[in-house]
Amino acid sequence: MHILVLGAAGMVGRKLCDRLLRDGRLGQAEISRLTMHDVVAPKKPEKAAILVETVEGDFAVAGAAETLIAGRPDVIFHLAAIVSGEAELDFDKGYRINLDGTRMLLDAIRKVGDGYRPRFVFTSSIAVFGAPFPEAIGDEFFNTPLLSYGTQKAIDELLLADYSRRGFIDGIGIRLPTICIRPGLPNKAASGFFSNILREPLAGKEAILPAPETVRHWHATPRSAVGFLVHAGTMDLVAVGPRRNLTMPGLSATVGEQIAALKRVAGEKVAARIKHEPDPFIMSIVDGWPRNFEARRARALGFTTAEKSFDDIIRIHIEDELNGAFVN
Amino acid sequence: MHILVLGAAGMVGRKLCDRLLRDGRLGQAEISRLTMHDVVAPKKPEKAAILVETVEGDFAVAGAAETLIAGRPDVIFHLAAIVSGEAELDFDKGYRINLDGTRMLLDAIRKVGDGYRPRFVFTSSIAVFGAPFPEAIGDEFFNTPLLSYGTQKAIDELLLADYSRRGFIDGIGIRLPTICIRPGLPNKAASGFFSNILREPLAGKEAILPAPETVRHWHATPRSAVGFLVHAGTMDLVAVGPRRNLTMPGLSATVGEQIAALKRVAGEKVAARIKHEPDPFIMSIVDGWPRNFEARRARALGFTTAEKSFDDIIRIHIEDELNGAFVN
Repeated sequence: MHILVLGAAGMVGRKLCDRLLRDGRLGQAEISRLTMHDVVAPKKPEKAAILVETVEGDFAVAGAAETLIAGRPDVIFHLAAIVSGEAELDFDKGYRINLDGTRMLLDAIRKVGDGYRPRFVFTSSIAVFGAPFPEAIGDEFFNTPLLSYGTQKAIDELLLADYSRRGFIDGIGIRLPTICIRPGLPNKAASGFFSNILREPLAGKEAILPAPETVRHWHATPRSAVGFLVHAGTMDLVAVGPRRNLTMPGLSATVGEQIAALKRVAGEKVAARIKHEPDPFIMSIVDGWPRNFEARRARALGFTTAEKSFDDIIRIHIEDELNGAFVN
Repeated sequence: MHILVLGAAGMVGRKLCDRLLRDGRLGQAEISRLTMHDVVAPKKPEKAAILVETVEGDFAVAGAAETLIAGRPDVIFHLAAIVSGEAELDFDKGYRINLDGTRMLLDAIRKVGDGYRPRFVFTSSIAVFGAPFPEAIGDEFFNTPLLSYGTQKAIDELLLADYSRRGFIDGIGIRLPTICIRPGLPNKAASGFFSNILREPLAGKEAILPAPETVRHWHATPRSAVGFLVHAGTMDLVAVGPRRNLTMPGLSATVGEQIAALKRVAGEKVAARIKHEPDPFIMSIVDGWPRNFEARRARALGFTTAEKSFDDIIRIHIEDELNGAFVN
């Protein structure tokens, strides 16, 4: 089996590739080849037992999608995107990458035309929803994004469903919760602070909290996100039917509950490293975001999270990213 | 006020232009100029009191949108589309006109960049919804189209909302019910038979009914459709907020109820001109279509229909299209 990962240098993309190489298989199928693509060169994994190629480039320029598809990958994980804050600040770039790039990929597959029909796993986002919301958003709630990023993801979802229905791809779109705790350096996502306020204090650093503690949001660990992707890459999509885009399970928590969990798991001293500095731009974006979901359909289709509580989310970060130890 | 109508040679487009020329104004504003555009030359109205231009061409080719926008129309009615049956049979054409063409228009407006922000009225469709449905579809039900046409319209709706939010246009999308009774010759829309079975018998001709009498669908007269467009072109959009796409009011009726109304209004002899000839292709499309809507939000925002019953729908056709007389 040949697997192509777009956005392989990103945080979730790297973790997905690590998992695929560690498992050596995706579901029942042995992996023979892994192509890792990103706009910056993905770091080549050491001592891989299979053929691993890294490809650097912009997938949204003419001919790029065709080149990526030339190796006829059996499964494509499409995680490449301009994140929410950047897509809001750079209108053209957001639409070019998040909409046109995805469509170019889908069209490159469609135009092969010899019956080629890869599994196409697309990472969508809960940003396809826009306030006002019900207390918990159900699986049939409409998409009224309040950001260009969410608009682009919602459009991609529609394309994915239509291209699947037409038989060009075997597609599934998964709306990831906000990933928490996101390791590494902050990126341009407006949701960055949900992770910053936990990751930085655990590393002995101060963190800025730009929003009030009452803000409620929807979270899942990187470990869960990789689990969702692997399940999406292997599950039987006949059971999914024509409604190919699913809200993934997650944990709903307020910022206050996040901080309380941090205190329980790591202590008061660590939590005291969080500084409150309200930021109107971040708040204006976050205000339109969802707080809680039902995600019944995804659960019924076998998507499960690795964590049961916010304490688990923090423990998983300490285990997976900090070798079991944080800075007290 | 300068008004641009795209799709001005189409049935609803022609009727809208007739109404605008007859009224001489849109809301409070006097109309000084009307540009009628279509892929086939719109028929130039006789004895118009204002400047009327007709423009023939494909609006989805490079530069066409810029040319159309060059006259800085204050209000744009965008009714141009490849209809459902054709967009399903010709994938490329459907996406090129229904998605790319609309986006080119929106981008041409966006790129003016001097504060130009026209009212942009977009005719969407109930084909943005896909079965299974609740008994009556509410205003917050999700879009899972089962046709490429509906996919394209749903994408256009998302673009319209985002471009409005960004301040490039003052946009509103209105999801028209199936227009009944559609005058003139049948077009390639799969929904054509809902009108054919009434219009043809009233003209003394036989009509083919390709679906069972139990099929329920959602209808409005051409007169109501024009009324919706005029209201959308004049209403205060601040009250609409960021959710810029609305399901229009209509009448829910089964084919059997349509035929019963025809019998009441025109008699048994007229209704006997309907011949039952089931067509699996038409049925496979119609099976995925909505049957009934709540349309509460549109009604609350002042959208009203001209008809109260299916008998009214037939009477309005006889009045508006047949000079009051049908063939007995």
